[in-house]
Amino acid sequence: MVSARAEFADRGYDAATLRGIARRAEVDPALLHHYFNGKAGLFAEVVAIPLDTSAIVKSINDGPTAELGQRVVRTFLSVWESPDGRDRFVALIRSALSNEQAAAALREFLTRELLTKVAARSGVADAELRASLAASHLVGLAIVRYVVMIEPLVHASVDELISLVGPTLQNYLVP
Amino acid sequence: MVSARAEFADRGYDAATLRGIARRAEVDPALLHHYFNGKAGLFAEVVAIPLDTSAIVKSINDGPTAELGQRVVRTFLSVWESPDGRDRFVALIRSALSNEQAAAALREFLTRELLTKVAARSGVADAELRASLAASHLVGLAIVRYVVMIEPLVHASVDELISLVGPTLQNYLVP
Repeated sequence: MVSARAEFADRGYDAATLRGIARRAEVDPALLHHYFNGKAGLFAEVVAIPLDTSAIVKSINDGPTAELGQRVVRTFLSVWESPDGRDRFVALIRSALSNEQAAAALREFLTRELLTKVAARSGVADAELRASLAASHLVGLAIVRYVVMIEPLVHASVDELISLVGPTLQNYLVP
Repeated sequence: MVSARAEFADRGYDAATLRGIARRAEVDPALLHHYFNGKAGLFAEVVAIPLDTSAIVKSINDGPTAELGQRVVRTFLSVWESPDGRDRFVALIRSALSNEQAAAALREFLTRELLTKVAARSGVADAELRASLAASHLVGLAIVRYVVMIEPLVHASVDELISLVGPTLQNYLVP
């Protein structure tokens, strides 16, 4: 599973191969094919979004409304700052950009599990558009900081980012 | 060139092949290899950032400071709303996420040609970090709206986006 995650993270869904994963894991490709129902099945296992999204939504929504934006940024960065979380999400984003199935997975996850639940909080008419703009900012932040690695964003501290991006998300989510 | 752009946009840098491009263009792959110095050379031609970045920076910087954020969003979306611009940038972003050479190209372009020039305007101490946060929001906006296609962002009008994202970028760029 570690090998598969590394292969998808390095190469994206389309360029990753069972052969490459098998080589990293030092096992027979046929074995992977048999146990995981091919590349798609293995990918589904690897990027399986942790099942505690309700805990994430709870930790975002629990607390003063005035600090909602800050909590969203802190929660988001805490996932990306862990090497395991980073690999998962880099793989997911790369794949979403080159594969419609992965894009649908990311889209559904973001919309159903997070956006509508966080948007429900504010009650303004364009809450869902605002939530999707907040999400787009977070997606871009992750890509620029962890994948494309543009300075000075790469070396900004988590606290700096919370203090700059928190108010931005706050304006989107609780206008 | 149209075929190469389509191949890179559809498959990303790593999965695209000279053979695939040649098939789309109905020419001999050896011809492409000869004239463009292989896949890397062809890619460089395809994603060649239009040479009028100074015109872009000028059109962003010309006008009242109070509307800088709006002008950045309008300029950015005008590129993405044109099918040709969209294909170029989708190819560039996909490739930047799976290929270090393309990531370096995007990084250098954004930093040298746009970020530092727009950041120079505000004069605050963390102007470059703020400019890179603004850029990250735009990158995420493009990905969510044009590639991963999350609603309701896909169907928001350009004017709606300018009115919502403009003030956000304004806060980053001219605090």
